[in-house]
Order: sequence, then structure tokens, then C-alpha cells
Amino acid sequence: MKISQLSDATGIPLATIKMYLREGLLPQGEKSSPNQADYGDEHLRRLKLVHGLLRVGGLSVAAAREVVAAVESDRFLVDIFGVAQRAASSSVDADNVTPEAIAVVQTITAGWHTDPRGPGQMLAAASIAAFEASGQRNAVRWYERYAEAARLIAEADLDLLDTRQTRAEKAETVVLGTVLGDTLLAGLRRSAQEDLSSSRYISPSGEDQPSPDPSAKETHS
Amino acid sequence: MKISQLSDATGIPLATIKMYLREGLLPQGEKSSPNQADYGDEHLRRLKLVHGLLRVGGLSVAAAREVVAAVESDRFLVDIFGVAQRAASSSVDADNVTPEAIAVVQTITAGWHTDPRGPGQMLAAASIAAFEASGQRNAVRWYERYAEAARLIAEADLDLLDTRQTRAEKAETVVLGTVLGDTLLAGLRRSAQEDLSSSRYISPSGEDQPSPDPSAKETHS
Repeated sequence: MKISQLSDATGIPLATIKMYLREGLLPQGEKSSPNQADYGDEHLRRLKLVHGLLRVGGLSVAAAREVVAAVESDRFLVDIFGVAQRAASSSVDADNVTPEAIAVVQTITAGWHTDPRGPGQMLAAASIAAFEASGQRNAVRWYERYAEAARLIAEADLDLLDTRQTRAEKAETVVLGTVLGDTLLAGLRRSAQEDLSSSRYISPSGEDQPSPDPSAKETHS
Repeated sequence: MKISQLSDATGIPLATIKMYLREGLLPQGEKSSPNQADYGDEHLRRLKLVHGLLRVGGLSVAAAREVVAAVESDRFLVDIFGVAQRAASSSVDADNVTPEAIAVVQTITAGWHTDPRGPGQMLAAASIAAFEASGQRNAVRWYERYAEAARLIAEADLDLLDTRQTRAEKAETVVLGTVLGDTLLAGLRRSAQEDLSSSRYISPSGEDQPSPDPSAKETHS
């Protein structure tokens, strides 16, 4: 198909597709004439993957290039997981991680086989360090329950992979699931908070009066 | 205490504290002389909160200002949840949400009391729309399991709130937990993926050969 048909089939603007070609994120089509190239199903598939990573996953062009190279490589899927994780994790400034927070993460993930300097452990430790530096205390049970939930999520991630047949399909699911799963979870967490906080009414304790804002009243049932 | 003591007590640079004062994120201290102001425990507490929101939570100054105003208001905690959620959610471009994805989110959160146009539902729908536009299919069970995990997480969030005594403490835990909980969960999810994918060996199916990378072998047990 022509480049314009790639655009029609995906709804991705022509200028964006040309940028992906220039950046090497999408391989050049086969020249069918000096001014025209022909694109196949593989291009279509790659285009959707790249667009998902960049547009919604928020990856940089460099990070997306690395992820795409991993998908096309013959590396173990566990390694592709690693590449996707690093690409989809904002890098953690070591200054933001305290030894105390690292110890907490090691406790709540005791028995897990993980790289103690990997993106997972560092991200978790940076969050806990920030939470405690902000004056929050006595949250160990909260951390533990997050670790339990994270395990359920990772099991769902691997079960989804099992439904994919070919290696290429598995690799694509690894990278898109890693990148987009965080946002999906963030969204569903907010929805669940909304639901639970409206049913389990949280009374403003202390001397404060509830606001007379009428929109607040609906939740006060 | 003097501003330099605020800095010593928190490790936050003096220039950063002065910026927070200029931006109105931290109230001015009481003038003790023409060139000196006095700060109390309330300032210390506010400083830690603001720094956690901006530095690790990644909020903009404008978003942090809105969150701080909500914490200090007499609004219902459920409303403060809403303010924190909006501040901690990248805004979703309506173009990135399809009616199909909205329908999927409504199905997996059936029975939840949520605002169908709230940040939770929109973020989740945008993720699903991007996932499916990238060529991923047959993932409904995966979405459902994310919704189940999100509910466990939200329950942990509300239980943590129950351990906080005063309204100010509750409000601070709401905003910091909302902002930092996403990152904590992203980190723990990666660690759990690492652990599970190394124990549940994922064989590269199809014609590909596993790479001879020795670091990959460890996971091949």
C-alpha cells in the first residue's frame, strides 16, 4: 500500500508517519517508483506499535527506538521486559533514594528475585523516601498491600502474554502492556477511590465544618 | 526558627525554599526584624508537603498551589481526593478516547459510583483506546483483573486514611498518597514482573533462537 493508505488505515497523520520514517522508527517501504514506496502489513503493525509508545505511552523517540529494536531482536522475553521497564520508567535520581527506603522495599518484596538496583526497586524506594520525607509515617501496612496488589497485576500481565501466539505478538504485548498498564492502573485506581470514598463516607473530623458546596453533598449519602 | 533552620531541618536548599515563598506555596514567616522572619512547625510541615508534591510527585507549581489550597480548605475529604486526582493526572486529550474504550471501562467498573467524565474513567479509557489502536486485542480479562487490583489498592488507600487522626493529617495523606502511590505501584509492578517472569520462564516461541547473552541465562531456570 501507499504511505497515504497507511495514514488512512490508522488515522495517523501523514506528517507523523514521515517523521517516524526519518527517525528510523518505521523502516522505509520498497521503492515502487522514484517518488513512491510500497508498504506492507509489517509496516502497518510497526506503525501502530510506535504510535502507541510515543503518543500515549509518552516515550521519547530514543526510548521508542530502543524498545522497537528489542521487539525485533531474538532476545529472551524476560530481557525485553527489562528494556520496556527501563524505557517506561522515569530515571530515578539516586539522591532521592534513602537507605531506609531501600530497606523498606526489600522487606515488602522479601523473597522476590529482583535486581536491587533495577528500575522497579528504585522507583518504589524513591516513592517511599518522598512519602516519608513529606512527613508521612506508619504506612508499612499500606506499602505491603501495594506489594500484594502489584503481584496480582504482574500475574495478570504474564497471563495476558500466555494468550499471545507468536514471539512477535508476545514481545509487542510486553512493551505495550508495560507502558500503558501504568496509566490504566492509575485511572482505575482513581475510579475505585471515587467509588469507595463516596460509599464509605469520610467525615471531616476535628473542628472543620464541611463545605456547603452542593456538589459535595451527593457524596454524603 | 529562621529560614536557614528550615533548610537544615529538611535538607531542602535555601533557594528552593525562597522560590516556594515567592510562589505563595509557603506562607511568609512572621517578621522578627526588617531582614528576618520567623517560621514555625506549620511552615515545616507545609514545606515538606510542597516539596513532596513538586519534586517527586512532579506536579507543576500551579497544580501544587491548588492542592495546598484544598488541604487548607474546609472541604470534604472526598472533594480533596478529587482535587488531588486532577492535579496528579495528566490531562487526557478527548481525541485519544474512543466510545468503544469508554464502553469497556464502564463494563469493567460496572456498579462503581464514578463520574463518567472524571480523570479516573478518562485515563483508563485513553489507555485502553491506545492499547487497542496499537493492535492489541482480546485483553478484556486483563482489564478486569486490573480493575480488581485497583479496588484492593483503593481500599488500602482509604484504610491508611483511617489511621490519620486530624483532618489536616488526613488531607495531607490523601494528596501525597494519590500523587506518590502511582509511582510506588509502578515500581512494585516492575519488581513483581521481574520476579514472576524469571520463575515462570517465558519461552521464545516461533522460529527465534534465544540470545546467547549470558545475563539472560540466569533467568532460564
